[in-house]
Amino acid sequence: MSTKRVGIVDTTFARYDMARAAMEELKQLCSVKLERRTVPGIKDLPVESKVLLDGGCDLVMAFGMPGSKPIDKQCAHEASLGLIIAQLLTNKHIIEVFVFEDEASTDQELAELADRRAREHARNVYRLLFKPGELTKLAGTGQREGGPDAGPLRR
Amino acid sequence: MSTKRVGIVDTTFARYDMARAAMEELKQLCSVKLERRTVPGIKDLPVESKVLLDGGCDLVMAFGMPGSKPIDKQCAHEASLGLIIAQLLTNKHIIEVFVFEDEASTDQELAELADRRAREHARNVYRLLFKPGELTKLAGTGQREGGPDAGPLRR
Amino acid sequence: MSTKRVGIVDTTFARYDMARAAMEELKQLCSVKLERRTVPGIKDLPVESKVLLDGGCDLVMAFGMPGSKPIDKQCAHEASLGLIIAQLLTNKHIIEVFVFEDEASTDQELAELADRRAREHARNVYRLLFKPGELTKLAGTGQREGGPDAGPLRR
Amino acid sequence: MSTKRVGIVDTTFARYDMARAAMEELKQLCSVKLERRTVPGIKDLPVESKVLLDGGCDLVMAFGMPGSKPIDKQCAHEASLGLIIAQLLTNKHIIEVFVFEDEASTDQELAELADRRAREHARNVYRLLFKPGELTKLAGTGQREGGPDAGPLRR
Amino acid sequence: MSTKRVGIVDTTFARYDMARAAMEELKQLCSVKLERRTVPGIKDLPVESKVLLDGGCDLVMAFGMPGSKPIDKQCAHEASLGLIIAQLLTNKHIIEVFVFEDEASTDQELAELADRRAREHARNVYRLLFKPGELTKLAGTGQREGGPDAGPLRR
Repeated sequence: MSTKRVGIVDTTFARYDMARAAMEELKQLCSVKLERRTVPGIKDLPVESKVLLDGGCDLVMAFGMPGSKPIDKQCAHEASLGLIIAQLLTNKHIIEVFVFEDEASTDQELAELADRRAREHARNVYRLLFKPGELTKLAGTGQREGGPDAGPLRR
Repeated sequence: MSTKRVGIVDTTFARYDMARAAMEELKQLCSVKLERRTVPGIKDLPVESKVLLDGGCDLVMAFGMPGSKPIDKQCAHEASLGLIIAQLLTNKHIIEVFVFEDEASTDQELAELADRRAREHARNVYRLLFKPGELTKLAGTGQREGGPDAGPLRR
Repeated sequence: MSTKRVGIVDTTFARYDMARAAMEELKQLCSVKLERRTVPGIKDLPVESKVLLDGGCDLVMAFGMPGSKPIDKQCAHEASLGLIIAQLLTNKHIIEVFVFEDEASTDQELAELADRRAREHARNVYRLLFKPGELTKLAGTGQREGGPDAGPLRR
Repeated sequence: MSTKRVGIVDTTFARYDMARAAMEELKQLCSVKLERRTVPGIKDLPVESKVLLDGGCDLVMAFGMPGSKPIDKQCAHEASLGLIIAQLLTNKHIIEVFVFEDEASTDQELAELADRRAREHARNVYRLLFKPGELTKLAGTGQREGGPDAGPLRR
Repeated sequence: MSTKRVGIVDTTFARYDMARAAMEELKQLCSVKLERRTVPGIKDLPVESKVLLDGGCDLVMAFGMPGSKPIDKQCAHEASLGLIIAQLLTNKHIIEVFVFEDEASTDQELAELADRRAREHARNVYRLLFKPGELTKLAGTGQREGGPDAGPLRR
């Protein structure tokens, strides 16, 4: 089996280098070839991701950090729809790793959340590519990337 | 006629194993080949469903349990649009089985709702694949999967 | 000219059998071949409609009755977008006949509204297929299917 | 150069015959072949426009007059998205001419607004087809079809 | 390597000639062939951009200045989605440069914001085409085109 290729796309708009955290994590988990691209904002992520997938990447991680204003939420919505359409046109996964500025109250907390979420999604990427059965073992268990897991419903 | 293949896609984000309930129900109703995949979140459902449909599944059930925050509703909206587009690109049904966290007030109730909805939608899948006439007999009768049926309008 | 084929797609979720009303009306207006399918909910309408159009139907009527909660409106929005995309992929019309539960205050009124809207849209289908000039005569006249017409602006 | 063909699509839902106004204006400006179609509502505009474009029209004008209720705004949103997708699938322009019922307070004012907007957009169509340089001369000058122009920002 | 071609699409609706500012900036940064088109409003940007990309442009800049009313925000949302879909269909970037009327309180400030944003996005275009590594150096640093940069999160 040839080495898997994982695309990494992030933005200059984001305020934390999530891509680096995810790449560090991925390298510890498995041997994959990484191809990194940076675009200005989250709405530029879909096409850059699609170009990488069409160019041979097996999966792309797309990182973004939308601001807290309503227009930022709308941009994130548009970007997410674009990422979903890009996946449907390529039949490959794009793992969206978005952290919203209002998910934490201090810069420090937001950076830590972004770092953890990037790393936990890197683990999801590893599982999708190499260990899909591990994901099924976690099905319905309330995983929350970057935060405390919600856990399964208590009955 | 060859055995029908049904794809089952769920998430690690969900807090109840709806896929298992649906698979149990389906096995009691008919003989189908089941192919299960698990992805991290609901926005990963569309492409995974499409891959299964393009790979030969006749229909996919997609399970998700969005949280109660506005961003969760938006994610569900994006996932639903993706599922609809995936269907239009494959000309096959994806039965979306989503349970929103705020549809019930306790974990127990939410789990029971999720279980019933999964099972009742499994019956819909059975009908779509093998007994379409049964669905037409129920046309306009106010069916509500998982909850009490609304019933037809009283005149 | 061969007989026109009209697809009829409705849901088990709806609380009134609009499809039957429309089919009755259509049969009185013209000779068409009707093909009826029933799906669980409105988000299942787009792909079923597209399958019928790709299978040779000249036009599809898609019936739905969304509930009154915000999530129901969102589902209707998603279904409508799917129906529009299905039309663009087939270059054929899908006449969407949706009645929202909060358009009337009693079951009786809602049923009557649904019945009238279904029948008036059947007349639109007849015109689209056989008498497009009749529609142009009504252009800009404020037609409202199922309710009192708004009429043209009074100057 | 062969005569340009312009499609004209409007609705029976609208309360003013904007298509007629635009056609009058277009005939005064240039020699084009007009092909008019009328559909029931604005959500029927995208596919009818696409059929005309695929049939050889160089451009389509799509006229609609959404009501003032939230559901009407949602329908307009869905129609607009459909019109944009139809353009992307054909690489031709569809000039959307929508007038919202709540843009004016009396029938008389609304009719006058609709008439002016239809005519001014007919001029845009003329420019797009025959005088694209005239549009560039107007770039960034705050044109408002049907109303007083906003004009360029005063510095 | 042949000269890169950059499409420039703007509107007559906008109240500032952002395209001119961006073209000036681009010419100072690099040698590219510019192709400018002007359309009436932002919803006309997607197809015009796609036509340019299909015609050989390597990248398009799309300029718009939505008004401050809710309907203007909705139009911007529709245009943004169209621009994203156009990119996915061509595998090329469209850099959206939108300035909302309510981003500044005076005409003077709005014009200055529009001018700066257009120029800073021209620099992004230069980097995407010729210096992608420069963008990666800026990854996660909180760049804000036209305004003061947010900067990276302080830890």
